[in-house]
Amino acid sequence: MLMVAMCLALLGCLQAQESKGHVSIILLGATGDLAKKYLWQGLFQLYLDEAGKGHSFSFHGAALTAPQQGQKLMDKALESLACSKDVTPSHCDELKGQFLQLSQYRQLKTAEDYETLNRDIETQVQRDGLWEAGRIFYFSVPPFAYADIARNINSSCRPRPGAWLRVVLEKPFGHDHLSAQQLASELGSFFQEEEMYRVDHYLGKQAVAQILPFRDQNRKVLDGLWNRHHVERVEIIMKETVDAEGRASFYEEYGVIRDTLQNHLTEILTLVAMELPHNISSSAAVLQHKLQAFQALRGLQKSSAILGQYQAYSGQVRQELQKPDSFQSLTPTFAGVLVHIDNLRWEGVPFILVSGKALDERVGYVRILFKNRAYCAQSERHWASEQSRCLPQQIVFYIGHGELGHPTVLVSQNLFKPYLPTQSWEEVPDQPGLRLFGRPLSDYYAYRPVREQDAYSTLLSHIFHCRKESFITTENLLASWVFWTPLLDSLALEVPRLYPGGAENGHLLDFEFSGGQLSFSQPEVLMPELGSVPKPSDFQVLRAQYRESPLITAWPEELISKLASDIEATAEQSVRRFGTFHLALSGGSSPIALFQQLATGHYSFPWAHTHLWLVDERCVPLSDPESNFQGLQAHLLQHVRVPYYNIHPMPVHLHQRLCAEEDQGAQTYASDISALVANSSFDLVLLGMGTDGHTASLFPQSPTGLDGDQLVVLTESPLRPHQRMSLSLPLINRAKKVAVLVMGRTKREITMLVSRVGHEPKKWPISGVLPLSGQLVWYMDYEAFLG
Amino acid sequence: MLMVAMCLALLGCLQAQESKGHVSIILLGATGDLAKKYLWQGLFQLYLDEAGKGHSFSFHGAALTAPQQGQKLMDKALESLACSKDVTPSHCDELKGQFLQLSQYRQLKTAEDYETLNRDIETQVQRDGLWEAGRIFYFSVPPFAYADIARNINSSCRPRPGAWLRVVLEKPFGHDHLSAQQLASELGSFFQEEEMYRVDHYLGKQAVAQILPFRDQNRKVLDGLWNRHHVERVEIIMKETVDAEGRASFYEEYGVIRDTLQNHLTEILTLVAMELPHNISSSAAVLQHKLQAFQALRGLQKSSAILGQYQAYSGQVRQELQKPDSFQSLTPTFAGVLVHIDNLRWEGVPFILVSGKALDERVGYVRILFKNRAYCAQSERHWASEQSRCLPQQIVFYIGHGELGHPTVLVSQNLFKPYLPTQSWEEVPDQPGLRLFGRPLSDYYAYRPVREQDAYSTLLSHIFHCRKESFITTENLLASWVFWTPLLDSLALEVPRLYPGGAENGHLLDFEFSGGQLSFSQPEVLMPELGSVPKPSDFQVLRAQYRESPLITAWPEELISKLASDIEATAEQSVRRFGTFHLALSGGSSPIALFQQLATGHYSFPWAHTHLWLVDERCVPLSDPESNFQGLQAHLLQHVRVPYYNIHPMPVHLHQRLCAEEDQGAQTYASDISALVANSSFDLVLLGMGTDGHTASLFPQSPTGLDGDQLVVLTESPLRPHQRMSLSLPLINRAKKVAVLVMGRTKREITMLVSRVGHEPKKWPISGVLPLSGQLVWYMDYEAFLG
Repeated sequence: MLMVAMCLALLGCLQAQESKGHVSIILLGATGDLAKKYLWQGLFQLYLDEAGKGHSFSFHGAALTAPQQGQKLMDKALESLACSKDVTPSHCDELKGQFLQLSQYRQLKTAEDYETLNRDIETQVQRDGLWEAGRIFYFSVPPFAYADIARNINSSCRPRPGAWLRVVLEKPFGHDHLSAQQLASELGSFFQEEEMYRVDHYLGKQAVAQILPFRDQNRKVLDGLWNRHHVERVEIIMKETVDAEGRASFYEEYGVIRDTLQNHLTEILTLVAMELPHNISSSAAVLQHKLQAFQALRGLQKSSAILGQYQAYSGQVRQELQKPDSFQSLTPTFAGVLVHIDNLRWEGVPFILVSGKALDERVGYVRILFKNRAYCAQSERHWASEQSRCLPQQIVFYIGHGELGHPTVLVSQNLFKPYLPTQSWEEVPDQPGLRLFGRPLSDYYAYRPVREQDAYSTLLSHIFHCRKESFITTENLLASWVFWTPLLDSLALEVPRLYPGGAENGHLLDFEFSGGQLSFSQPEVLMPELGSVPKPSDFQVLRAQYRESPLITAWPEELISKLASDIEATAEQSVRRFGTFHLALSGGSSPIALFQQLATGHYSFPWAHTHLWLVDERCVPLSDPESNFQGLQAHLLQHVRVPYYNIHPMPVHLHQRLCAEEDQGAQTYASDISALVANSSFDLVLLGMGTDGHTASLFPQSPTGLDGDQLVVLTESPLRPHQRMSLSLPLINRAKKVAVLVMGRTKREITMLVSRVGHEPKKWPISGVLPLSGQLVWYMDYEAFLG
Repeated sequence: MLMVAMCLALLGCLQAQESKGHVSIILLGATGDLAKKYLWQGLFQLYLDEAGKGHSFSFHGAALTAPQQGQKLMDKALESLACSKDVTPSHCDELKGQFLQLSQYRQLKTAEDYETLNRDIETQVQRDGLWEAGRIFYFSVPPFAYADIARNINSSCRPRPGAWLRVVLEKPFGHDHLSAQQLASELGSFFQEEEMYRVDHYLGKQAVAQILPFRDQNRKVLDGLWNRHHVERVEIIMKETVDAEGRASFYEEYGVIRDTLQNHLTEILTLVAMELPHNISSSAAVLQHKLQAFQALRGLQKSSAILGQYQAYSGQVRQELQKPDSFQSLTPTFAGVLVHIDNLRWEGVPFILVSGKALDERVGYVRILFKNRAYCAQSERHWASEQSRCLPQQIVFYIGHGELGHPTVLVSQNLFKPYLPTQSWEEVPDQPGLRLFGRPLSDYYAYRPVREQDAYSTLLSHIFHCRKESFITTENLLASWVFWTPLLDSLALEVPRLYPGGAENGHLLDFEFSGGQLSFSQPEVLMPELGSVPKPSDFQVLRAQYRESPLITAWPEELISKLASDIEATAEQSVRRFGTFHLALSGGSSPIALFQQLATGHYSFPWAHTHLWLVDERCVPLSDPESNFQGLQAHLLQHVRVPYYNIHPMPVHLHQRLCAEEDQGAQTYASDISALVANSSFDLVLLGMGTDGHTASLFPQSPTGLDGDQLVVLTESPLRPHQRMSLSLPLINRAKKVAVLVMGRTKREITMLVSRVGHEPKKWPISGVLPLSGQLVWYMDYEAFLG
């Protein structure tokens, strides 16, 4: 489907390039801020670049304003059009005159207005003996106006078959995954995918647009460097000094993550992280590789981000949105997010995304810092910047502003001398005293564009030339929202740290990462008073007793975290004492959070010496989504390094059939356990408890597994899939340690009940869990324990 | 055994401390350089520190020189004795006078001399109404004299029972593990372990002696930091500006590794790396933890080190050792070694040991650099050194010399404020302009000893106080040689890189580490001319025909790289077309390079959709080092993400027995293949070829597997382990593609032969490889193909 759309788009493009005809460009919102500031200038530039090459143009400025007043406003916007420096003023006046002649204002309000526009274009084309190549509609209007305009264009303003239609859309493209999907499907009912050009103007910024060409042109050197073996970290940063004053009503709804991270910084992230296509001028290949990069992003958790809000913000919101004095906004104006990419190229490399308002400087950049894997035998004063491998090695795409003040590509001289096309990039002369990223400018090979160009001019040219890779496809957009929405949801009630703004922020917003988690470097000092809703961290992990064994109870996150730490401690102790750690795990949903915690937060877990066993299994193939092993595989094994032969799935699938008695799977598993686990005594068995009091796959009234000599048994579950394999109670009770994890409100009743019953495994198998000489510990969250 | 020795030593110590009696100290080599420079001063200091505390002393200077001349020489050595600054000159003269009264020279040459010494001590003790506490014999003599002196002491100079004997030994303690063992067992025949004090004078240097106390006194903070999660690297450095001139005969025999790395730097390494005992004043605990640190050291390989030699060295050796003009020494005068410690605390942290002569500065230090896991939201000019977590965080034990010029403990202010005992350590005043390890001195909490003390004074005090942890036990010594000897052996014929000496070395000795390997950062420029061997990169990959199929031939590196790329291309194609890629791999050594290439160089390989099968397997458990699967596991599976159920080891180990016919392992594997691989046609089979023409585990004259219906067969190898499981020729020939990899000179003959034979699988199984409709490609390196 994607490929078909791509091909169609490509065909449209080829036609556009080959048969030069008339192009009508309709700028909707022609008298608005964006149009005044960038778009008219971009259209003028497009005209200057393309007019001599065979196409003819007409430019229609459109808005809701009545014709006369609209024309006046538009004329005013057009006054400031400028030529590049190498054009003489008189020639520039001449060119502007030509452009103005081709430009006219028109009111577009009613369906008839659109029909008139269509008729006018057709008439003009016929009258001038032209052939229509296509039409560009640029939506420089608020998103609520999109649907109406789109419907009118689709019903009245499509050009004749053979000519193309392109509509250009500006963000915001929704507020989360659902709204983005709705907007996309609404637009999709009017336009083909290949007709839509969603603008992220960052993709038009010269340093950003250079990322892929740079990777391509320096492919030979970068091939060996652009990966986790060499990259220490990637920073994607967009800092602003301004605050949200005057835009509070927009900002309060969006916040920093939706405003810049979900779009600009994410786009940059994909340009850095994606596999480089063989041919980067193939839009289809670039877009496809971008999507693959999205697929490899590891899901974000609440702890992947830290949030800040400048102190004046809530006051600005109260004023602009007429909120009561008591109102305190939770909208973040600063965010730092740690992104991990789970593929072979980037595994373990932190991608740090930061953006915020009211910071100490205005600057944007992507910085790829390489690992220092050198020892330099001379003392530092003898180090030469182009030779010493102990000096920082980095590549920076400096987007603009900051101390340099212009787009720049920086490559440490001790890394390599990069190739950049000399017709468009020139070397930056040294500025003594200027230090960037810890080093003087003279330490870098530094290049800036020969001619600085505004992002919109670049993008308008790309729209005209059908370079779709500079735009956000629907798939790309939705992939980005799929990535960001869970984080936004989980942060919705988070209180951001307050910061004073500017240089006074000091080290208040510095943050650190350890494991997969982010946290501020300095302790909290400026919490707003929000009334006191108790937060999970206000609670201590409670220690108590349950069925005469230790009980640990907490909120789910803390509980899982505590259990994971306890498992790690047990593992380390076992490995220290016995050389191995035999861990038997249950399936189900509660352990998944545990697996994730173990996979991402416990780097010193002795996986190489851990044997993993299953407590129970459904009689389905191992790769079946229902298989307990599949959960273990997806959430744990893919992220840690357990040797293959230390992994012991239950043999439920032998000779292409499931749990057949005669295949003796249970006996095989039992004999594997006997052979490998000393005294068949696991170091740790993790159990759950069902609402019927079952544990492992030992259900009430089970004819097997509750007593006797069998270590592993086949059982029947009341639920599908009925057939199960399970460790037996006698085997479980030989373990050195048994942990029972019980979570969620649905467990409340059975938790109450089981607290009172004696040893009645026939009725409640869980009550039969009583390690002979080992330790039993209950882990229950508050909902399961307190209801 | 160790513990018994420790206890005895401890008893000796307790006695020494409690019952104050007479102590005789015999300095053998009393007129030598070391004695003149350090030892007499150290003994004087000991006298000053201890004389008032109840013990009485006598000091015997001894040498081979006749009494009169010897006394003169010794008097001369004693002239320069100095008191500390706080003693007035007149009081100092008084103290010196007392010390000289207690000191006398005596010739120790014959057995009778020793007997006389013993009698004299006994007479003196009796005469003065004293009680003998013990005797210290300090061996400041060349090692060849040790045995004789030791024999004489043992037979004639042991004090009466109840008094202790301590003998102090100076390095070198052997030349490698064997000679060290011989020396140790020789000494062991005369002395108890607890009687011997082997000096490594680095352990007496104040900054080195402070490492354990520092770790102990700052235990609370360091507990969380002193591990692989926080430490980026550890550098243990000892640079000298002097060269070996005048000592060439010693140096030529030892070289830099034996001279400084095996002893000084290794001792420091263990102090940094060892688990911290609860009580660091327990010598036994310290020594035991040190030994544990040795046990965790990963074995060194040739590639763990780089070697250099200053250019003037060989000339100095020729001159001092009267060698011919053609003589070129291979003795290194510079070495960098990468040490890894395989325990949970240090896994993955590089410990870099560097030492050399004729370098740009004289300095010694241990530097613990911490990981930068922070992002700082302010621009650098706002960073405060005590707060910014983005500035380097390090702890340095600065041993001496260098720009600071005195022992110093440095801790970055952004790390923590350390505790050091104020009676012995004071803060260092700032020296504006002085930069250390990339930062101004003012960035550190810096401490230096209140009173600088020479290492020998410290160690003599420790000998007197029986602080055995400052000395090298026999076990410790042998453990160090066990660690270093294999490296020394493997480097014996290595040609060191030549360097000019001093600041001119430039970046010539800088080195880098990747994986576990070290290499110089700059390409070779000063190699002695050793004739020009062609290098792999001088050749192109050749394409030709072999047995009427395509042949690709190249140098090994290029060949493996080409094969890996071809496999990746096939994988991508298969996944695109069929959704999966079924790859059957052979064992052996050639594929290991291929596995490594695939693991480290092919980031976009579709592992998630790849099924891995084995071509053949030895009938050993999967985790056995002989198992083909083990090679696959170690070199490929640990590094990529193949889902567990896509990995298909051969079932050679069922029901705890190996390849039993009745376990039907071959049939099981065949039916797995039939079930999962469409038409049992692998997408790619990788084969090798044996010198007897075997392929897979199909050997000449094999009764099974060469034809017939069986897909998988049990076979017999002429080599151990004899029992094998193998894919059959008919199954191999169903593959879509078969690649045969042949490498190395030993394959030359069979390569020639097989090129000429027809289809004779009974004689040469490889000749039966003829895919029915698939493609066969031969990959041979030049040595196998061209001989």
